[in-house]
Amino acid sequence: MNPFDDEYFMKKALQEAQAAYDKGEVPVGAVIVFKNQIIGRAHNLTETLNDVTAHAEMQAFTAAADYLGGKYLKGCTLYVTLEPCQMCAGASYWAQIGKIVYGASEPKLGFTVLDTRIHPKTTVISGVLEEECSFLLKKFFIEKRNLN
Amino acid sequence: MNPFDDEYFMKKALQEAQAAYDKGEVPVGAVIVFKNQIIGRAHNLTETLNDVTAHAEMQAFTAAADYLGGKYLKGCTLYVTLEPCQMCAGASYWAQIGKIVYGASEPKLGFTVLDTRIHPKTTVISGVLEEECSFLLKKFFIEKRNLN
Repeated sequence: MNPFDDEYFMKKALQEAQAAYDKGEVPVGAVIVFKNQIIGRAHNLTETLNDVTAHAEMQAFTAAADYLGGKYLKGCTLYVTLEPCQMCAGASYWAQIGKIVYGASEPKLGFTVLDTRIHPKTTVISGVLEEECSFLLKKFFIEKRNLN
Repeated sequence: MNPFDDEYFMKKALQEAQAAYDKGEVPVGAVIVFKNQIIGRAHNLTETLNDVTAHAEMQAFTAAADYLGGKYLKGCTLYVTLEPCQMCAGASYWAQIGKIVYGASEPKLGFTVLDTRIHPKTTVISGVLEEECSFLLKKFFIEKRNLN
């Protein structure tokens, strides 16, 4: 039995998503794991920072590369609560990340439907804790709609 | 006669590319222009910062949004010496940038060959000062090859 499985780390990404939610940000969270250790964690801050590049994944890539002292994340796994967009998948290509694990799908602007090029050495797993990841996003958008 | 034409601002982007070259970075430079004023300028810093997300365009988007105090760059033009990649084109989608003007093409990993989704309100112009933009890149890679 491995306590450090994909669900374990997705729960950590969900904690980050909750932190985004608490700030009124679209609730997406990410962690980057290297040898069972979290070396980068971040949540969406596009509103707070007025910056479209401040997606959870982008910040997590920067943090993880900073930790490792090199820009490639070859042996690392990205856990993210929502399917990455073109920008974030494009960044993962440059980082040559080993694995991407995501929770909820993004059927309109996710990298799979838009056919964004993923690095040939990157494996992708989808649907981990999908319901919990989706629930937080749906809750956010329903509340936002009711406020406007 | 308009002194502030595409070539004028591409020359400014080329100055940024030269600054990247001088640091041993792949020489790509970018400026973002709003009402004939440069509100963001940056050059590639991926090696210096150990960060794949530090492309010229990404930093210029962040700088321009910071200047404007909002994350959308609707009335702005991005001038960049090399065709944007998936990551940078993906960021331009979120920023809803008005126009992208690039110099040299990137036939392998540029956003056109990879069919990256551009915002429907973004217009794209290519080939402005293409020779000058390409020359600096070719010079960099030839010198790099000869050093290794």
